[in-house]
Amino acid sequence: MKTLNIGLVGYGFMGRTHSNAFHDAPLFFDLPYRPVLKALCARNADRAKAFAANWGYESVETDWRALVERKDVDVIDIASSNDTHHDIAIAAAKAGKIVMCEKPLGRNAKEAEEMVAAVESAGVANTVWYNYRRVPAVVLLKQLIDEGRLGRIFHYRAKFLQDWTISQDLPQGGEGLWRLDVNIAGSGVTGDLLAHCLDTALWLNGSITDVTAMTETFIKERKHNLTGKVEPVGIDDASAVLGRFSNGSLGTFEATRYARGHKALYTLEINGERASAMWDLHDLHRIQYFDHGDEGRVRGWRNIHVTDGDHPYMDRWWVPGLQIGYEHTFIHQFADFLQALGTGTTISPTFRDALQTDYVTDAILASAKSGRWEHVKTS
Amino acid sequence: MKTLNIGLVGYGFMGRTHSNAFHDAPLFFDLPYRPVLKALCARNADRAKAFAANWGYESVETDWRALVERKDVDVIDIASSNDTHHDIAIAAAKAGKIVMCEKPLGRNAKEAEEMVAAVESAGVANTVWYNYRRVPAVVLLKQLIDEGRLGRIFHYRAKFLQDWTISQDLPQGGEGLWRLDVNIAGSGVTGDLLAHCLDTALWLNGSITDVTAMTETFIKERKHNLTGKVEPVGIDDASAVLGRFSNGSLGTFEATRYARGHKALYTLEINGERASAMWDLHDLHRIQYFDHGDEGRVRGWRNIHVTDGDHPYMDRWWVPGLQIGYEHTFIHQFADFLQALGTGTTISPTFRDALQTDYVTDAILASAKSGRWEHVKTS
Amino acid sequence: MKTLNIGLVGYGFMGRTHSNAFHDAPLFFDLPYRPVLKALCARNADRAKAFAANWGYESVETDWRALVERKDVDVIDIASSNDTHHDIAIAAAKAGKIVMCEKPLGRNAKEAEEMVAAVESAGVANTVWYNYRRVPAVVLLKQLIDEGRLGRIFHYRAKFLQDWTISQDLPQGGEGLWRLDVNIAGSGVTGDLLAHCLDTALWLNGSITDVTAMTETFIKERKHNLTGKVEPVGIDDASAVLGRFSNGSLGTFEATRYARGHKALYTLEINGERASAMWDLHDLHRIQYFDHGDEGRVRGWRNIHVTDGDHPYMDRWWVPGLQIGYEHTFIHQFADFLQALGTGTTISPTFRDALQTDYVTDAILASAKSGRWEHVKTS
Amino acid sequence: MKTLNIGLVGYGFMGRTHSNAFHDAPLFFDLPYRPVLKALCARNADRAKAFAANWGYESVETDWRALVERKDVDVIDIASSNDTHHDIAIAAAKAGKIVMCEKPLGRNAKEAEEMVAAVESAGVANTVWYNYRRVPAVVLLKQLIDEGRLGRIFHYRAKFLQDWTISQDLPQGGEGLWRLDVNIAGSGVTGDLLAHCLDTALWLNGSITDVTAMTETFIKERKHNLTGKVEPVGIDDASAVLGRFSNGSLGTFEATRYARGHKALYTLEINGERASAMWDLHDLHRIQYFDHGDEGRVRGWRNIHVTDGDHPYMDRWWVPGLQIGYEHTFIHQFADFLQALGTGTTISPTFRDALQTDYVTDAILASAKSGRWEHVKTS
Repeated sequence: MKTLNIGLVGYGFMGRTHSNAFHDAPLFFDLPYRPVLKALCARNADRAKAFAANWGYESVETDWRALVERKDVDVIDIASSNDTHHDIAIAAAKAGKIVMCEKPLGRNAKEAEEMVAAVESAGVANTVWYNYRRVPAVVLLKQLIDEGRLGRIFHYRAKFLQDWTISQDLPQGGEGLWRLDVNIAGSGVTGDLLAHCLDTALWLNGSITDVTAMTETFIKERKHNLTGKVEPVGIDDASAVLGRFSNGSLGTFEATRYARGHKALYTLEINGERASAMWDLHDLHRIQYFDHGDEGRVRGWRNIHVTDGDHPYMDRWWVPGLQIGYEHTFIHQFADFLQALGTGTTISPTFRDALQTDYVTDAILASAKSGRWEHVKTS
Repeated sequence: MKTLNIGLVGYGFMGRTHSNAFHDAPLFFDLPYRPVLKALCARNADRAKAFAANWGYESVETDWRALVERKDVDVIDIASSNDTHHDIAIAAAKAGKIVMCEKPLGRNAKEAEEMVAAVESAGVANTVWYNYRRVPAVVLLKQLIDEGRLGRIFHYRAKFLQDWTISQDLPQGGEGLWRLDVNIAGSGVTGDLLAHCLDTALWLNGSITDVTAMTETFIKERKHNLTGKVEPVGIDDASAVLGRFSNGSLGTFEATRYARGHKALYTLEINGERASAMWDLHDLHRIQYFDHGDEGRVRGWRNIHVTDGDHPYMDRWWVPGLQIGYEHTFIHQFADFLQALGTGTTISPTFRDALQTDYVTDAILASAKSGRWEHVKTS
Repeated sequence: MKTLNIGLVGYGFMGRTHSNAFHDAPLFFDLPYRPVLKALCARNADRAKAFAANWGYESVETDWRALVERKDVDVIDIASSNDTHHDIAIAAAKAGKIVMCEKPLGRNAKEAEEMVAAVESAGVANTVWYNYRRVPAVVLLKQLIDEGRLGRIFHYRAKFLQDWTISQDLPQGGEGLWRLDVNIAGSGVTGDLLAHCLDTALWLNGSITDVTAMTETFIKERKHNLTGKVEPVGIDDASAVLGRFSNGSLGTFEATRYARGHKALYTLEINGERASAMWDLHDLHRIQYFDHGDEGRVRGWRNIHVTDGDHPYMDRWWVPGLQIGYEHTFIHQFADFLQALGTGTTISPTFRDALQTDYVTDAILASAKSGRWEHVKTS
Repeated sequence: MKTLNIGLVGYGFMGRTHSNAFHDAPLFFDLPYRPVLKALCARNADRAKAFAANWGYESVETDWRALVERKDVDVIDIASSNDTHHDIAIAAAKAGKIVMCEKPLGRNAKEAEEMVAAVESAGVANTVWYNYRRVPAVVLLKQLIDEGRLGRIFHYRAKFLQDWTISQDLPQGGEGLWRLDVNIAGSGVTGDLLAHCLDTALWLNGSITDVTAMTETFIKERKHNLTGKVEPVGIDDASAVLGRFSNGSLGTFEATRYARGHKALYTLEINGERASAMWDLHDLHRIQYFDHGDEGRVRGWRNIHVTDGDHPYMDRWWVPGLQIGYEHTFIHQFADFLQALGTGTTISPTFRDALQTDYVTDAILASAKSGRWEHVKTS
C-alpha cells in the first residue's frame, strides 16, 4: 500500500484530534494509503518533542517553513492558530503539498480568497476540517434532505452556546487562549463557533444571500497574557444573525460563550413542508425527526439513535445502541479524504467551500457594524 | 334534562377530584344527566360544611348511613378511607343506589367479593375510580393494542415511585395520613400505588396468572397520631413483583414511597413483536411509541404529544399542543359513566373488574410472606 | 360575599377559557367576589344561546353596545376578534366598567394607546389576558430572577412555533380563521404568537429598546372565505427578531406557523452570569434550571417539576407530581385579578403594560419593512 | 519504557474493542508499559491473518495452546466465546501469564471457581472486562456513593434491554451467533446482559444475598447453523429478578432480547435517603442526579453531562461538552490495569470479583427452575 507522509503544524486541541484521526482511520476503514506521521511542527521544541513522542511523529520541526520544504512530506495539515493558516497554506500549496486546514479557513474572506487561489492554481487536494459534517446523525439528515423528504424548506435555525469565558479573570491571549485575542483569531465566536453553524447550514440548506446581525462584547477589557497589560477586548463574545437563504427559507443563527450551563451546545433544526429534523452536539448520535406523512394519531418526533449498521459510517464501528464520540468525526473526514484521494477526487468542504463560510461571517461582522442588512458575496 | 343527585362521602384529596369532575364534566361533555351535588357526608361537621359551601353541595350529613337512606340521592360516591368502602358500598347497593367507589375496591379481596355481590344482586350501576384508564395518552395506547399494532406481547413493566414517607418523623395515621395505618388502608403501597399499575395492566394486557413478590417496611416503627404511641408499622413501604400474564408475556411491577426524587412517577411500558410503547404520569399527555414497521434508517421512538383533536377526549378541550392536567382523568371517567348510564350500559372498571385487581394484590402480599409463587384467583 | 357580574364578548376558543376560569376560580381560590355569569354577547344569536346555556350565562346579547350599557354588568370581558378590542374596551371604560381584554391589546399601538387612555381616564380596573405569566413554572422563574439568582443577564431567547397553516388549502378568514385575515387580526404571528414571547420577556427581563426583524409570508395568496375570492395574504406567516434589552442583554425572538412538527411550542431561555433557566409550553409544569453555584462535579440542568405545595399556585391544586393544564393559567389570572380588586389594587399586565408589547410589535413590523434597526417607543 | 507483550485470543466484536484499547491507551494515558501486539490467535487462519494485519499483531496462532506456551507473550487476553474461557485462562495462569478475560468469567460458577483458583495459585495479575465500570458517568456515581451522598440505600434497579433476536428466522449458533447456543454461551441473557447489571450492582451497592427469578424462552426452536437442524433453544431469552442486598436495599433486575425498540439499553437507578441517581448506556456520558439537600423550590433531577476536566478520565480527552464513545470504556480499563501493574497492584474486577457475579447468575437460573428464593453463595 502506498504511504502518505503527513506533516502536522500545531499540537493543541486540534493537533490531538487530527493525530488521533491519522492513527485510527486505518484501523476502521479500508484506505488506499497508509498515513505516516512524518513530522510535527511547533515553535516550542520541548513540547513539540513530547507531543511527537506520544503520537509517534518521526521528527520535529520548529519552523513551518522548514516543514513545507521537506521532500518527504506529502501533506501539510494546519492545526495551529488562525493567524497562521494563510501563510502556511499558501506556502504549502506552492510547494505542491496536499493541504488540510483547520477552520475557519482565513481570519477573513480576503485571506481565504488568497488561500483558495493558491491551492487551486497549484492543483493540490485540499480540505477544511469542518468536522461536524461527518457526524453520522448529521450525514443521515443530509441524506433525508437530499432525498426530498423534507419538501420545501421554511426555516433553518442553529445555535452554538458555550459558557467558558464568563469570568472576568480569564486573560485574553496566551497559551491555549489565543481564541480570545482578535489579532490571532480574527474574530470571536463568529469565526469560531458560528462558522460551524454556517458551514453545516450551507451544506444542508444551500446558500445564504443576505444577513443582518448584532454582536456584543460583554467584558470590555481583559488582561493580556502576552503583554501583561489590561487591554480592550477585540473579539465578539456573542453574535446573533437573521438571514435569508436562496431557497426562500429563513435562517436564524446565534453563537455565544456567555450562555451559562451550555458547554458546547451546537444545535440545529430545519423545518420543511413535509418533515422537520433536529440535531444537537451534546447528544450527537441522535436526530429528532418528524414526518408529517405518518398517520396523524401516532405522529410524533422520532428519536433516532443513529448507531445501526445502515447508518452513515456506523458499519465500521460497534453494534447497534453503542455510541461513538466527538473525535470520530475527524476520523471519518480523514478516511473520506484518503478514499477520495485514491480515486483522484476530493471531498467537501474544500477550501472553496470554506471560503463561502468566510463570506457569510464577513457579512455578519459588517452588518453588526453597519446596522443594515448586508449582501453575502459569492465566489 | 334529567338530574342525577349525588351524595359524596369524604372531603379529602379524592373528594376534591370527584367534586371537580361533577362540576366540570357538564361544561365539556354532552351528558344525558345533569349532576346535582345533593349532599356531602363526613364525620367532622364543620369541615364538611366548609367543603360543601365551597363546592356547592346542597346539604351535609355526618353519618353515611343517613346519606344512604336519603330518597333524594341517586348516586353514592365513596371517596373516604379504604376501611369504609365495604360497608358503605354494600349499604348503598342494598338501598338501590348507583355506587361509585374510590380504589382499591376493598382492603382485600374478601371485602371486594362481598361488594361485588352486593351491587350485582342489587343490579345497580357501579364503577371504581381507577382514573388512569382515562388519560388520553393511555387510551390511545389501549387503542393501538386493540388494533393489533403491537403484535405478540413479550413484556409488560410498570412502576409507581414516590418519596414522601422517607422521613422517620412522619406519623402513621391521623388526618390525611390514614394511608400509613394498615388497619385503615389494608396495605401500604401494594393497595395504594401498585393497584393502579395492576389495574392498567389487566386492562391493557389481560389477566395475570401467577406472581412472586417481595415487600419491605423500611421504617419499622412510627408514632401513631391517634394513639400517641410509637407502634410497629404494619404497611408495606415497597413492593416488587414478577408475574406471568395469560398471553405468555412477562410482567414486572414495583411500587415504593422510598424512591427519592420521584413524586408520583407511574410509568408503564409494553413490548410487542411489532411495536412498543411507554407512558409516564409526570408527562401524562405523551406516549413514546416505537413502530418496527417504520423504515429502518429513520426508525425511532416517536414522542407523541397526545393533544390533537383526533386523540381520545381531546376534541373536548383546547387546541393541539395545549395540555390538560391530572384532574381531567376524573372528569373523563364521570362523563363516560353518565353517558353509559344514559344508554343503560356501564363502563369499566366495574366493581367486578376492580375485584380482579384485589385478587392480584392479595396474591402479591401472600407471596411476600410465603416466598413462593402464588396463583392468582379469578372471579 | 359580594357578587361581580360579568359580561363576556365572544364564544370562541378564548371565550371558553375565560368562562372556565370564571367557573373554577371560586372552587380553588379564596376570592373576595363571587363571579356571576350575567351575559354572553355574540353576533350569532343561536350559537350565543347554546354557548350561554352550556356555561351558565344568564342572558344573551347580540350587540356589544347593548351589553356595555347594561346596568347589571360590572365587568366587560373581551374575547372576540382583535378588530373589536378597541371599540368595545373604550366604550366599556366610558361606561365605567371593569375591562378585561384578550391579547394583543390593539391591532397596533395606536389603537392600544387610545384604549389605555380610556381605561386610565375612566379609572377602571383593567387587565390583558397574557395568560402565560400565570404558569406556575414561569412564575417560579420570575421569582428566581427577582431574587437575583441569575445575576447579570446576557441572553434572552424565545420562540413560538406552530405548523397549522402550512396547507395551501386553508382559507383566510371565516369562522375560526380570522387570525389569517390581516384586517381583523392586525398582523400574523407577530401579534398572535410573538406577542406572548414579548410580553413574558418584558416582564422577566425588562424593556426592549431596539429591534431589527424580518417577516415572511410563505403562501402569498389564499381563498378568502368571506369574499369567496383568492386574495393576497396580508399577514406575516413568520417573524424573526434581534433585539437589545435596556439591561444590556441580547434578545432573539421568533414566531412561525410553518415549523412542521410543533403544535404550540412556546419556549424561552434566559442566561445569566450565575444561573440560567428554560421553559417550554409543551411541558409547562417544568423548568430547567442551571445554577453555576452548584459544586462543579455534580452541576447540571435541574429538571424541576413545578408541582409542589411551595411552588406558585400549586398549594391550591393536587399533590406533588400531579400536573395541571393549559387552562389553569386563566383561572390563576382571574383569581389574582379578583383578589387585587378586593384590595383596590390591580395586577399586571394592565392595559398600559400590554401597550408596551404593542410598541415592540409595531417596531418589529416597521423594521421588517425598513430593513433597519428600529427604536422601540415607550409609554 | 518496558514493553508488555500481548497475545489475544478471538477476533470478534470483543477482539476489536480490546485491540483498539491496546492501540489507544498509550496515546491518551501515561502508562508504565508499552503494549506490544505480539500475537493474535484464532482457529480460522485466513481471518486471523487479516485481523492481525489490520490491527498490527506481529504474528498469528491458530491454537491457543501454542499461544499460551510462547515465551514472548506476557499477557493472554481472552476475547473468544464463553466456552473457551475456562481452559485458556487456567492454562495461561499455569504458564505464568497475566490473564485478562472477557465476561462472564465462566459459563457457570464452577468453571469460574476453578479459574479463580488457577490465577490465585499462580499469583498472576488478572482482570475481567466488565467494561461499564469504566464509563466516566458510572465512576462519578461510584464516587458519590462512596462519599456517602446518597445515604441509606433503599432501592437498586437495573435493566438491559435489546431486541435483536425477535425474528424466528435467526439461527442459533454459527459465526457471530454463538450467544444463542447454550452449550457455548452457558446461558442466554442472564450471563450475557444481566451479568453486566449485576457486576455494576455489586460494585456500587454491595453483595446480593438472595434472589427469586423467572426466565423465558419465547422462541422455543430455531435452526442450528452448525448442525443444520431445527433444535430446541436452550438459552433464556429474558430474565427477571427480585433480590435483596446485604445493606437492606431491594433490587430488581431484568434483561431481555425481546424489548422492541431498545438496542442496548442498559439502565440503572439507585435511590438513597438523601439522593438518587440514574444512568443509561444510550446516553452514557450523562447521569441524572437528585439531591434532596437542594432547596425545595428549585430541587430537581440534575442532568449532569459528564464531560468536564474534573470528571473521571475526562481530563485525558477533549473539552467540556464533547462526548466520548462506548469503546473508551475498554481503553480506560486497560490503562487502569497497566497503571496498577506498574505499582504491583491490581484493579477490580478481578477474577474473584467476577466469580461473585457468576454466583448470582447461578442462583438466578436455579431460582427460575425451582420457583423459590435462592441464597447466593459467597466466595
